[in-house]
Amino acid sequence: MSGGYTGKILVIDLNTRSTAVEDTYIDAAKNFIGAKGLGAKLLFDRLPKGTDPLSPENILMFTTGPLTGTRAQTSGRGTVVTKSPQTGLFLDSHFGGIFAAEMKKAGWDFIIVNGRFDNPVYISITNDSVEFKDASEIWEKECLETHNWLQKTEGRVKTAIIGPAGENLVKFSAITFDGHRHAGRGGPGAVMSSKNLKAIAISGSGKVPIHDPEKFSITARAVLKKIQDNDFIPIRRKYGTPYWVKPINDWGFIPTRNYQEGYFEQGNTINAETMRERIVDGSGACWNCVIACWNKSSIKSGSHKGVSLVGPEYETLALMGSNLGVGSVEEVAYLNERCNELGMDTISLGGVLGFAIEAYEKGVITKGDLGGIDVGWGKTEEMARLIDDIAHRRSSAGDVLAEGVRIAAEKLGKNSEEYAVHTKGLEIPGYDPRGAFGMGLAYATSDRGGCHQRAWTVRAEVMDPDLDRFSFKKKAKLVKEVQDERAAFFSLVLCDFAPISERDCVDMWNLATGFDHTVESYLLAGERIWNLIRLFNLREGLDPTEDKLPPRFFNDSFTKGPVKGIVLSKEGFQQSLKEYYYLRGWDAKGIPTEKKLKELDLAKYA
Amino acid sequence: MSGGYTGKILVIDLNTRSTAVEDTYIDAAKNFIGAKGLGAKLLFDRLPKGTDPLSPENILMFTTGPLTGTRAQTSGRGTVVTKSPQTGLFLDSHFGGIFAAEMKKAGWDFIIVNGRFDNPVYISITNDSVEFKDASEIWEKECLETHNWLQKTEGRVKTAIIGPAGENLVKFSAITFDGHRHAGRGGPGAVMSSKNLKAIAISGSGKVPIHDPEKFSITARAVLKKIQDNDFIPIRRKYGTPYWVKPINDWGFIPTRNYQEGYFEQGNTINAETMRERIVDGSGACWNCVIACWNKSSIKSGSHKGVSLVGPEYETLALMGSNLGVGSVEEVAYLNERCNELGMDTISLGGVLGFAIEAYEKGVITKGDLGGIDVGWGKTEEMARLIDDIAHRRSSAGDVLAEGVRIAAEKLGKNSEEYAVHTKGLEIPGYDPRGAFGMGLAYATSDRGGCHQRAWTVRAEVMDPDLDRFSFKKKAKLVKEVQDERAAFFSLVLCDFAPISERDCVDMWNLATGFDHTVESYLLAGERIWNLIRLFNLREGLDPTEDKLPPRFFNDSFTKGPVKGIVLSKEGFQQSLKEYYYLRGWDAKGIPTEKKLKELDLAKYA
Repeated sequence: MSGGYTGKILVIDLNTRSTAVEDTYIDAAKNFIGAKGLGAKLLFDRLPKGTDPLSPENILMFTTGPLTGTRAQTSGRGTVVTKSPQTGLFLDSHFGGIFAAEMKKAGWDFIIVNGRFDNPVYISITNDSVEFKDASEIWEKECLETHNWLQKTEGRVKTAIIGPAGENLVKFSAITFDGHRHAGRGGPGAVMSSKNLKAIAISGSGKVPIHDPEKFSITARAVLKKIQDNDFIPIRRKYGTPYWVKPINDWGFIPTRNYQEGYFEQGNTINAETMRERIVDGSGACWNCVIACWNKSSIKSGSHKGVSLVGPEYETLALMGSNLGVGSVEEVAYLNERCNELGMDTISLGGVLGFAIEAYEKGVITKGDLGGIDVGWGKTEEMARLIDDIAHRRSSAGDVLAEGVRIAAEKLGKNSEEYAVHTKGLEIPGYDPRGAFGMGLAYATSDRGGCHQRAWTVRAEVMDPDLDRFSFKKKAKLVKEVQDERAAFFSLVLCDFAPISERDCVDMWNLATGFDHTVESYLLAGERIWNLIRLFNLREGLDPTEDKLPPRFFNDSFTKGPVKGIVLSKEGFQQSLKEYYYLRGWDAKGIPTEKKLKELDLAKYA
Repeated sequence: MSGGYTGKILVIDLNTRSTAVEDTYIDAAKNFIGAKGLGAKLLFDRLPKGTDPLSPENILMFTTGPLTGTRAQTSGRGTVVTKSPQTGLFLDSHFGGIFAAEMKKAGWDFIIVNGRFDNPVYISITNDSVEFKDASEIWEKECLETHNWLQKTEGRVKTAIIGPAGENLVKFSAITFDGHRHAGRGGPGAVMSSKNLKAIAISGSGKVPIHDPEKFSITARAVLKKIQDNDFIPIRRKYGTPYWVKPINDWGFIPTRNYQEGYFEQGNTINAETMRERIVDGSGACWNCVIACWNKSSIKSGSHKGVSLVGPEYETLALMGSNLGVGSVEEVAYLNERCNELGMDTISLGGVLGFAIEAYEKGVITKGDLGGIDVGWGKTEEMARLIDDIAHRRSSAGDVLAEGVRIAAEKLGKNSEEYAVHTKGLEIPGYDPRGAFGMGLAYATSDRGGCHQRAWTVRAEVMDPDLDRFSFKKKAKLVKEVQDERAAFFSLVLCDFAPISERDCVDMWNLATGFDHTVESYLLAGERIWNLIRLFNLREGLDPTEDKLPPRFFNDSFTKGPVKGIVLSKEGFQQSLKEYYYLRGWDAKGIPTEKKLKELDLAKYA
């Protein structure tokens, strides 16, 4: 094999302060593609069963795919693969920016970090030179501050950084890339921190190899043209993800006050247009992306005047806006910026804060637990203080909440699990499944817990005439098919927002690598990846009865908006899950059958 | 000038049974493009002021555009231009199929029919040979039957036909093209009938001239590719226009029971998926269209088993489904088929029937007026009988309703104008403006009365974050800009459903004709056309205070669905109309200013 993968893996052992270069596993790229899929295979093969995610034995991988760093549009993305400290399961956390493309230019397809350094360290990589450097000066520094320090110290490097939340092993702490992009979900920051690794700085000057550069270039240009001609791109460019605040609120299923409602009265004051009018200064883009969906924002007035950030994205406007009763783009932006700089995932933190406020209202958390903070819906300053306490595990509530809502509810008791909104420990994103039942099945079966990116069924459920958004009918098939396709797509790895057809993906993959895949074998690779991760999760102790949803979605209904009065039916959900298992070729308990594993060339993993 | 227009106009004088060939006005194609725009100019120049639309002096034009019959996708369309007997104003009624492309192949850019034949006649055109033939054998025949008769008698000809409704001068009677496509709105069928003209049969064997055939072909292929790559096309192909039943109902503004509600409880049983499951046999397309949005349907069971048609389209499902309380695709299909074969516009007829049922419920129309028919919501058989009576002006109610809701309400009195839902005499289509205020302004200012195609703001209003669907804010600018752009587009003339950019339109136009237009001058031509038609309407007696909406939209609100309780504000509407006039460069009374007309080279029309 040649092209998109040279097969070079940089293995860093922090215990021995040594590095090695490997090119094993690269043949597996034909079956597992790259980034997510190939990462999953390496993790399965190398991680001892039952490893504590925050022990030195856990493996932290930065992975790229066969298209990363190439002329393919949106190919600046990479993936963090590890065992999640939040879910105890497989984690792939994707990131934009330029870091991943730079890895490829430096000659590395994967960077694997093992072990633990004795004291805070950062790693400086320039092509094949690797140095371990003292991080005591930047430990405790916030993310952007660290990024800027590295720029000053190391030159124009690309960076992966943890903030104070990661250092304090907050279970939903992020890794921040290039100052403004984040591998947010599932706690990769805590894994990096458990290795005493504050940052990686990388620069590369090589060329990303391509099997057939000339044809690849023609195809990549044709794909670029299609993206430019796509009707939806001008809107995506103009607004970015905040575009969705308006329709999701109008359709009545934006998380509101910890998922107690689905319609936020102040939806208009946190939507994309208000953002543009009040805080957006300009746009920006990840490496090699013509879409340019970033909003570069700054607060123009009030007590947080001058605060700037890239964002907020839709998920943050939902989880830290409507879900917390915050009806001002400036205040969401302020909370967002705090979260970014402390290094936490905004989706999980929004869920955690919503849970905390409801628990406080119900007397399950007291003002004493909160170190005197009187939290409440829309009370931004109090939330900002609590965010800081969570990041530093300061008050007793801060320390408990830093574990995420699942463990917090276990520790707090008093029926607080009734309003702990998560699946498998991962807090649920910005689409309440009561307004699009398919999202319920998508959350329940997602490989990393409550995630919307594995099968985003929203548009189809609301718009397509063959789907009823208030029914589980036909959702099992939809969710299964999208999961397989996305598993392949996230292994190439391209951006979720890029409208690139399966045919074009396969063409670019083949031309980059010299493979002769078909659309069918590409989608089959996606299914293979999905099944391997299921096997990994089962090995690590997943009880398939955890393929479930939080009780709120079945028990409580909204009092207003178009989804008023609607709850998920338990029977409907169970029936749909059964159908999903069947379509996956899994047994009635949700375990892949021997037959399916043989079909996917995964028999040896059974 | 060369290319897309040879400048050949076939002028048929039915009074003298003579024909003439003209090539005047073709220079005007640079300023008025073709089809709609050039047709408007010819009508303005040739029609004596104040002509009775049903007199021999009215002019019936079949017009094509510079792209008609070329390799440009969706270029099989043409336009009927005349003075409408329903509104007394300008009418452009567009049609698909293949007739228009055949006109170009026969060598004719326009066919103009003047005068009146003494007895029923049809015209047979083969290239430049024109024959007048006796139509006594087909007079009173339905549309498809007439089409089939012409196929048998004349060979494989393309056809334009009126049905019994046209013969009886029903004010919303259609002209049917090639058996299955319709120039439906505004009563062109009655104009054709007033000339004693039952049909035109045409066949052509020439080549459509193109200024730069090679470059045109390359551009047209590139546009085809973009259409094929467009995300929305597979859905449009799968469902056609019925796709919209689900979202418009879900969003709460599908006309229901004569616009008394905006949400139809049986929405699911008249949506696109139910259609596919129960009646759709396959798809079809107009000439040179890769989208292929037609649904070829047939009723599989019940008393109308075997009835087949192309349709129903969205508008018919809305106006003859939810708007009449009909919750079965079979029954809508049955009413649709009756309407097609009798030769009437389904939008207007749906509005007329909804009005009739409400008037009957309120005692304004009696069972006696209806010849004993006990009409009511959802009562399909009774409606079918009334449809037949309207087409034949049989009962006193049938005769009154054949005039459309405006005149019917005038004649019936008793406050029935309170629920006569029209603008300028043209019944309103399937988007209740209470759920998308911009559509209110679009209907009020449309050049041919209550029409949705002049500025369809629905998707933008519901989805785009800079628009609030329950406000008139920013709607004036949106409506004005879309109207200008569509006026140009409908002059080329391409299909409303084809996603073709302004840039591509202009490139194809230039390559077809040898012009050197820019996007700016193309859009300016659209604005010029819009203003010329305004001048025509003012000349024909339009009182600008008729730029208004029916009272129901201001006075009555829905009792359920997401638009519950909402009405248009009179002040908001007037303010928005004022803003619209201002943006158009019209005076406060809605009359184009001298300055604007000079700017558009229309000073001589002032």
